[in-house]
Amino acid sequence: MENNSPESFQETRKYLNEIVLKYADKSTKRFFSLDTHVYQDGALPIKTKELLGLVASLVLRCDDCIKYHLSQCKDASVSDAELAEAISISLIVGGSITIPHIRRAFEFWDALK
Amino acid sequence: MENNSPESFQETRKYLNEIVLKYADKSTKRFFSLDTHVYQDGALPIKTKELLGLVASLVLRCDDCIKYHLSQCKDASVSDAELAEAISISLIVGGSITIPHIRRAFEFWDALK
Amino acid sequence: MENNSPESFQETRKYLNEIVLKYADKSTKRFFSLDTHVYQDGALPIKTKELLGLVASLVLRCDDCIKYHLSQCKDASVSDAELAEAISISLIVGGSITIPHIRRAFEFWDALK
Amino acid sequence: MENNSPESFQETRKYLNEIVLKYADKSTKRFFSLDTHVYQDGALPIKTKELLGLVASLVLRCDDCIKYHLSQCKDASVSDAELAEAISISLIVGGSITIPHIRRAFEFWDALK
Amino acid sequence: MENNSPESFQETRKYLNEIVLKYADKSTKRFFSLDTHVYQDGALPIKTKELLGLVASLVLRCDDCIKYHLSQCKDASVSDAELAEAISISLIVGGSITIPHIRRAFEFWDALK
Amino acid sequence: MENNSPESFQETRKYLNEIVLKYADKSTKRFFSLDTHVYQDGALPIKTKELLGLVASLVLRCDDCIKYHLSQCKDASVSDAELAEAISISLIVGGSITIPHIRRAFEFWDALK
Repeated sequence: MENNSPESFQETRKYLNEIVLKYADKSTKRFFSLDTHVYQDGALPIKTKELLGLVASLVLRCDDCIKYHLSQCKDASVSDAELAEAISISLIVGGSITIPHIRRAFEFWDALK
Repeated sequence: MENNSPESFQETRKYLNEIVLKYADKSTKRFFSLDTHVYQDGALPIKTKELLGLVASLVLRCDDCIKYHLSQCKDASVSDAELAEAISISLIVGGSITIPHIRRAFEFWDALK
Repeated sequence: MENNSPESFQETRKYLNEIVLKYADKSTKRFFSLDTHVYQDGALPIKTKELLGLVASLVLRCDDCIKYHLSQCKDASVSDAELAEAISISLIVGGSITIPHIRRAFEFWDALK
Repeated sequence: MENNSPESFQETRKYLNEIVLKYADKSTKRFFSLDTHVYQDGALPIKTKELLGLVASLVLRCDDCIKYHLSQCKDASVSDAELAEAISISLIVGGSITIPHIRRAFEFWDALK
Repeated sequence: MENNSPESFQETRKYLNEIVLKYADKSTKRFFSLDTHVYQDGALPIKTKELLGLVASLVLRCDDCIKYHLSQCKDASVSDAELAEAISISLIVGGSITIPHIRRAFEFWDALK
Repeated sequence: MENNSPESFQETRKYLNEIVLKYADKSTKRFFSLDTHVYQDGALPIKTKELLGLVASLVLRCDDCIKYHLSQCKDASVSDAELAEAISISLIVGGSITIPHIRRAFEFWDALK
C-alpha cells in the first residue's frame, strides 16, 4: 500500500512523462494533446466527462487511469454518493473482475481527502 | 443494414429475454434486476447514468449494449452535441478499435429520430 | 435469427476451416491440434473441461466459441441446471456486457434440443 | 516476490474490503453478496465452480481474482493435475498474453502448500 | 457469407463514415485524421505498419478492423506466407478465442484476390 | 521503479519459469515451445515479428509481455524511431488506456541501453 499515495502517483507520472517526451514521435504527442482536450468543458460539463473517463477506466481495468480520473473527479467536486453510483455502474457492466480495481479506487479516493 | 432498425432491435431483445427466463437460475435473475436498478435516478441523474452506461459499452465494444443505452439516452433527452462528446471520450479512451462500433452507434442514433 | 441454427453453424465452421487449411502455416496447424487435445478426458472429465471452455468463451464474449462449447456440453450430457449455473458464474465475473451473448447462448442451447 | 504470500494477500483484501464498505452504495453491496452466492454448492459442485471462476479470472487476466480462486480451489481439494489441466485450457483459450499470470498463479499455488 | 465481399465491406464503410461526419465533434474528426496519418511511410515501411495494424486488430478481435487492414496489406503487396506468419503470431498471443476471426480473415483474404 | 530493471525482470522470469515447469502439463509445455517457434526467422524477418509481438502486447496491455518483446526488439536492432512508430500505432489502435503501459515501455527501453 506504500506506493498508493496520491503524491507518489503524481510524481511517478511526471517522471515517466518526461521519458515519453524523449522518445515519442509526433503522432503520440498529438494524441496526448487530444487526450487532454476531450475532457474540457463543452456540451457536457467537466464533472460528467471525468465520471465518463473514470467508468471507462474501471471497466477496462487500468489502475493508473482510474487514479488519474479519481483525482480529476475530486477537483471537479464529485461527491462520495456520486462516486459510489458511478462505481456501481462500472461493477454491474464490468462484473466481479473489476472488484480488485474498485477496492483500490476507494482506497485512493479515501487518500485523496 | 436491414437489421439495424430500433424496432427490430427491441423485438429481438424481447424474444431472447423470454428464452433467458426459461433457462436462467435465480442468480442470473437477481443480476438482471440489479442491472435495471443501477441506472435509476439517484445522486447522479438518469441522463448521466445512461451516458456512463453508453461509454462503458463503447469501450468494451458491445453493439447490443450500445444500442440499448442509445435508446435510453434518447429517452433521457441527451442532445446530439452531448452524444458527440461522450463518443469522443470513448474513442480517445478505447482507440481506433472502437471506430466500427462508433459508426454503427451514430447510424442507430440517426435511426432513433 | 435465421443463421442461428446449429446445422448452419457447423456448416459455416467446416467451410471456413477448409479456407484456413489452404493458407495457414505449420504453427497455426499445431495450435489447432493442441486446441483439440486440451479438452480430452484427463484428470478433469470432458464435461468439466467443456464447461471451462464455455465460461472462458462467455467472459471473453466470442459467440462462435460459445456455440461450439455449447454443442460439446450437450454431447457431454450437461443438464439445463448445470448450464444455468455455469452461465450465472460467467455473468457475475464478466458483468452485464456478457448479457447479449448469454441471450444468444440460451437461444442456441434451446435450438440444440 | 515478497508480497506474493497467501497471508499478505488475505490481509490486504480484508483491509481494502473495509474501505469498500465505507463508501459503496447498496447496489455494490448486493453485487458482492451475489458474487459469494454464485459459487455455492448446487447442480455443479463447489470444486467445479471454483475451477470455472479460476479459468474466467485467468483469461481475463486479473491476478487478485486468480489468487482468490486458487485459495478456494485449494480448500475444495483440487489436485495439482486438475489445476494443471484447467490452466492449460486457460492458456489455449487466452493465448500467450496469459503466461505472466500463469507464472504467478503457479507461484501462488506453490506457496499455498 | 453474402455480406463478406470486399466490395460490400467498402460500401458499408463509406456509407457509415458519412453518418459519422454528420454527428461527430472536432475531437473525433482529429482522431480520424491521426488514425490515417500513423500508417504512412516512415522509419517503418507501410507494409510493416499495416501488418502491425492487422495483428493489433486480430488480438483485439474486431472483424471490420481486420478486413480494413487485410485490404491495406494486399495493396502493400503482403504475400500469402507473410500473412500466414503474422496470423500465427496473433493466434499464439491471443489464443483460440481469435480463431473465429482468423477463419473470417482468411476467407476475406481469399476473396480479395 | 526499483523493480523495473531489465536484469531483475529476467531473473524473476527465470525463477517463475522453473515453478511453471514443476506444475505444468504437456499441453502447456507444447504451447511454450510453439510460442518460441513463432517468432523465428521466416517469410517475415525476426525484427518485424518482434514488433508484431510488441504491438500485440501493448494493445492487450501486458507489462511483462511488453518488456520481453522490448528486449527482443533491442537484440533485433530496432531503432528508437522504429520503436516510436510502432508505439504510435499501438496507442492509436488501443487508445489512452494503453498510455500507462507506454510510459513504462519507454522507461524500460531507456534502461535497456
